[in-house]
Amino acid sequence: MSTTQNKKIAEELIALNTNIFLWNREHIEKSFNINGKTKEGELTVRQFHVLTFIKNGGMHTVLEISNWFNISKSSMSIMISKLEKNGYLRKEQASDTDDGRKMYFYLTEKGMTAVTEAEERVLETVAGCFSSLDEEKQEKVYTHLQELNRILKAGGLGE
Amino acid sequence: MSTTQNKKIAEELIALNTNIFLWNREHIEKSFNINGKTKEGELTVRQFHVLTFIKNGGMHTVLEISNWFNISKSSMSIMISKLEKNGYLRKEQASDTDDGRKMYFYLTEKGMTAVTEAEERVLETVAGCFSSLDEEKQEKVYTHLQELNRILKAGGLGE
Repeated sequence: MSTTQNKKIAEELIALNTNIFLWNREHIEKSFNINGKTKEGELTVRQFHVLTFIKNGGMHTVLEISNWFNISKSSMSIMISKLEKNGYLRKEQASDTDDGRKMYFYLTEKGMTAVTEAEERVLETVAGCFSSLDEEKQEKVYTHLQELNRILKAGGLGE
Repeated sequence: MSTTQNKKIAEELIALNTNIFLWNREHIEKSFNINGKTKEGELTVRQFHVLTFIKNGGMHTVLEISNWFNISKSSMSIMISKLEKNGYLRKEQASDTDDGRKMYFYLTEKGMTAVTEAEERVLETVAGCFSSLDEEKQEKVYTHLQELNRILKAGGLGE
């Protein structure tokens, strides 16, 4: 019976994955630029994710960033160059013991502002989706989310 | 006060997004091939996602698939060609009223088997993560997941 319950949990978690993906598509991604039609000064979702990753993790090489996002190094190089050209990123030669060809990328002030603004916009958008729920339902949603975050963050789930 | 609650919910939902991403990275993606080091007959995560999308949605053009995944058409073309070469996908000329150059891709039997096997493997892996929880905790996790799925699937959230 415990195994059946595990499978049911797994099915719900996989469904949650899909539902969150679709929910983001429906509610969040629309507030970003669509790939290939970037207006001046506005980020695509993918650019937002890359900049957020660099913001949270400090300086990174293109290889590190492409590994993280499971994207080929050449595709990531193109994106990084664009972000650098548009003033969101700056590069710096590695000062450590490698051969000096390694380049680290970090956020400029413009990049930091753009990410922060986009993060706030996302937060407002998500918050707006829950505004019409009554207080009791809001409290329930909040509890479910908190609990799941606690469980997933523990990561091991009983380890 | 309701606005504060909304923001708190939004923060938790955004955190859940990140936690699920990291949880997948830690527990699921390791059971797939790492990009660029594909062993014969094994899928990368990205290939798995593309094949699952085609499995669930029927025939698609490269443009439709690349739009869905927010990936450039040229990158997606390379991936689709590889999947076709490896026997997971087959293409068919569009029979509708366009100029006849449009190609639709659909799963072969090999593709269908590969996706189904990978889906089962993911399900087993996820289920395994919850096996050491006691029954009461399992029941709680299940309830939280179910409730959130119901809410997110409704999509509108009070609309």
